[in-house]
Amino acid sequence: MKKPQTKAINKLKVRRLGIDTQKEHVAYLRADSHVIISEGFEALARVRINKGKLSIVASLHIVHSRLLSPGEVGLSEMACSSLEVENGDIIEITHLEPIESLAYIRAKIYGKTISESGISEIVDDVVKGNYSNVHLSSFITAFAGDHMSSGEIISLTKAMIQSGNRIKWKQKTVVDKHCIGGLPGNRTTPIIVSIISSLGLTIPKTSSRAITSPAGTADTMEVMAPVNLSMEKIKKVVEKEGGCIAWGSGANLSPADDILIRIERALDLDSEGQLIASVLSKKIAAGSTHLVVDMPVGDTVKLRSIEAANHLKILMEQVGHAVGLKLKVIITDGSQPVGIGLGPSLEAMDILAVLRNEKNAPADLRERSLLLTGELLELHGYSKNGKGYETASKALNSGAAYKKFIAICKAQGGFTEPEFAKFSCDVVSTLSGIVQTIDNRKISRVAKLAGAPDHPRAGLRFFSPLGKNIKKGDILYTIYTETAGELEYVLQYVRMEKKIIIIK
Amino acid sequence: MKKPQTKAINKLKVRRLGIDTQKEHVAYLRADSHVIISEGFEALARVRINKGKLSIVASLHIVHSRLLSPGEVGLSEMACSSLEVENGDIIEITHLEPIESLAYIRAKIYGKTISESGISEIVDDVVKGNYSNVHLSSFITAFAGDHMSSGEIISLTKAMIQSGNRIKWKQKTVVDKHCIGGLPGNRTTPIIVSIISSLGLTIPKTSSRAITSPAGTADTMEVMAPVNLSMEKIKKVVEKEGGCIAWGSGANLSPADDILIRIERALDLDSEGQLIASVLSKKIAAGSTHLVVDMPVGDTVKLRSIEAANHLKILMEQVGHAVGLKLKVIITDGSQPVGIGLGPSLEAMDILAVLRNEKNAPADLRERSLLLTGELLELHGYSKNGKGYETASKALNSGAAYKKFIAICKAQGGFTEPEFAKFSCDVVSTLSGIVQTIDNRKISRVAKLAGAPDHPRAGLRFFSPLGKNIKKGDILYTIYTETAGELEYVLQYVRMEKKIIIIK
Repeated sequence: MKKPQTKAINKLKVRRLGIDTQKEHVAYLRADSHVIISEGFEALARVRINKGKLSIVASLHIVHSRLLSPGEVGLSEMACSSLEVENGDIIEITHLEPIESLAYIRAKIYGKTISESGISEIVDDVVKGNYSNVHLSSFITAFAGDHMSSGEIISLTKAMIQSGNRIKWKQKTVVDKHCIGGLPGNRTTPIIVSIISSLGLTIPKTSSRAITSPAGTADTMEVMAPVNLSMEKIKKVVEKEGGCIAWGSGANLSPADDILIRIERALDLDSEGQLIASVLSKKIAAGSTHLVVDMPVGDTVKLRSIEAANHLKILMEQVGHAVGLKLKVIITDGSQPVGIGLGPSLEAMDILAVLRNEKNAPADLRERSLLLTGELLELHGYSKNGKGYETASKALNSGAAYKKFIAICKAQGGFTEPEFAKFSCDVVSTLSGIVQTIDNRKISRVAKLAGAPDHPRAGLRFFSPLGKNIKKGDILYTIYTETAGELEYVLQYVRMEKKIIIIK
Repeated sequence: MKKPQTKAINKLKVRRLGIDTQKEHVAYLRADSHVIISEGFEALARVRINKGKLSIVASLHIVHSRLLSPGEVGLSEMACSSLEVENGDIIEITHLEPIESLAYIRAKIYGKTISESGISEIVDDVVKGNYSNVHLSSFITAFAGDHMSSGEIISLTKAMIQSGNRIKWKQKTVVDKHCIGGLPGNRTTPIIVSIISSLGLTIPKTSSRAITSPAGTADTMEVMAPVNLSMEKIKKVVEKEGGCIAWGSGANLSPADDILIRIERALDLDSEGQLIASVLSKKIAAGSTHLVVDMPVGDTVKLRSIEAANHLKILMEQVGHAVGLKLKVIITDGSQPVGIGLGPSLEAMDILAVLRNEKNAPADLRERSLLLTGELLELHGYSKNGKGYETASKALNSGAAYKKFIAICKAQGGFTEPEFAKFSCDVVSTLSGIVQTIDNRKISRVAKLAGAPDHPRAGLRFFSPLGKNIKKGDILYTIYTETAGELEYVLQYVRMEKKIIIIK
């Protein structure tokens, strides 16, 4: 309830407790605090905290010990940062006005279609931090599944773009690629960026680190060059070389997405609409005009059927068109890992082998990279339809792409050659037959247990693709670790888990 | 990821930080803790904490300050209590195994019907504390609106009953009443319990305290007798007098509901299915066999249309039947407050006036009480159909009900006569006309701003029911407060807010 009084009594002295609660603001108040008593706050109540012109919404944790002195309020790290306060600063706590946009979530639960302005109000409240994790979870759940119309997805994408910064490039066209995740070793980005920028187009690529996989593109690239670049540095690299492969963090391109993704991960819930809005809003905010999306399909990746992939493809292209992005989705094979290496350093070796046109370079990684680059060149109009692959091949075969890659690495801070980890051990087949299926998730887990991506040189090299004729005693894959303990540890898992590779 | 290792390295010493995070378990770990590093935990990760045979799931908050010493883990109050640990105890932290029942929530989001065993698994995880607030919110949202079939509501009700304690009574039949909330002053319970138990039936009534209203039944009853009774005390009172009016707290009758209701409140989300499961599971767990439900309908109460009420009534009776409860829902008028007083003490005066058959006793409170009691007597079979009201009236008019009420108060710890607060002030009409509408929510807010329920004697007495012919200067209601400051405060609101009572 809003009290029509002056709020002078609700002033408290800040104590920075140093507690990290991620994006959620938390305020800690003594149970005997006059604010608790006079305002009737309960634990987990949502309160507004004001400091000068800055204002945040926080969840209340009530302290029964002597952690705080009378008259003090504890604040979590995020709350201190948002309010720009330090120990001893004075803040004011008041009741939170009702969050009106929750009404749209309730309407969605009852099957209503939500207007563009309604969705925009929700995203606005999300970015302002007015939603607690409980509200965020309800929003994500209510709009998940097939509950969003394409119109609503377009509204959400637009609202997410408007919620954050937007990068402007001098160039008229800026190309980009994206992979709808989940295929180990599918590290085409550095190759595509090198070819594209060697042809004079602009491709300022930002990538993520691993979340659940043994390596993200940023982790892999970091083995060869620095990726933790400021926005100014990214702009300088791109100005000089036409492309970059950087870690896409602090640019605040889609702050709503940064907030929502943590909750989606906690719920293990990927909704089509939110996925599309998340990807496309970040690309538009990053200034991209042409985008090719790699969509691997297979039993053990995110998209498990061609039907599901086709549905997502059509919807994504529709939304892309509506927000002014030229977009093509390429459905690819996701039945087995790409390349040989899994883990940052081992994947970097595959990339370099392709760029250097080495004889033993993984053909699948090369082919996927050329295919996607060709599509991007045709989408952009640089190549005529049907000629993109050829143009891409020439740039790769001539060594121009490799030269460009090294130049980009140098512009980012210098090139380093990837290395193997200290310890290695072959895993051999206990029977003879043909490789029938490979569990992408389980083979990734082996690489992670070996230490990837925290130990960049750890992981595995994979020698048993689908259809290969394996004899008893043949090497299936080689594990690399930095410590003997980790090696023992991962071998224990390999012995326990029978269904990583099925041979019949 | 589950690591197949021995967990000996993950031992930490407990530090009780005294932080109240309500039902959610929170563990605080130093950012440089070896567990954080070796296990790769992030802030807000869900972890399992073991102490001997006890085990909980907690959310991780990461501490960057010197709040904790190396080797220490901070625990929230609820976590300490669930693990039965004190400062210095050693606990073990491990990765959390995946929560399988989240798959049913995802299935529900995609429109699937969930089996009885699926719903039972969810409720089981909820009660064990395996769901974070984020998971709970997703569960509530996914099953809200009209997303639940009657079969699923029955499954949810059964699962909630099985999740907690269940009270057994010697008597074959135990009657009960419930009101689907929101109508100020609708304090029929003490009257119904007195009549019913005076007739020799068993009615062990537990009630709630106010959440958003100026008084809950437990608050009102507490003015006249102690209500904070242990389960043993409740059993003794009921054995002696056949009935009680106690505060329904610590009995752990539906622990799932206790956990879910906090999140429902944060979301301001009332779903039919969850409402029915919540009410009926608690009644069955409390041992009730016959239940009458009062369902007020009006523009400013929870149920706003006869259609919505009828839909809920049919569904509720269907579910009641399926779980073996004899149940009748009575739809009543919810267009204005019941009785004269609003606030614990002032409502208690109305109850006593009815029980004492005073001339000025509020006729509406008397009539509603007799109507519901009559329905309950007929549902039980004590009275023949059509004769319940008459039987109830006789017990009330004869003074038997009042005698029984005083006896119950004495058994609960002694009767006290309610009193007025120190300060009072009449609010008079500024115009003449007929009372057209009364906003139940706003008139409740006046009583709350006056101090109810925290000051039990505060509130208001209401003299301007619908249809009354009001002249300029007539008293609309009288406000009671314990302090002059509060009186000023509430009058400020009354002057500001024009639409509490509309006279034309």
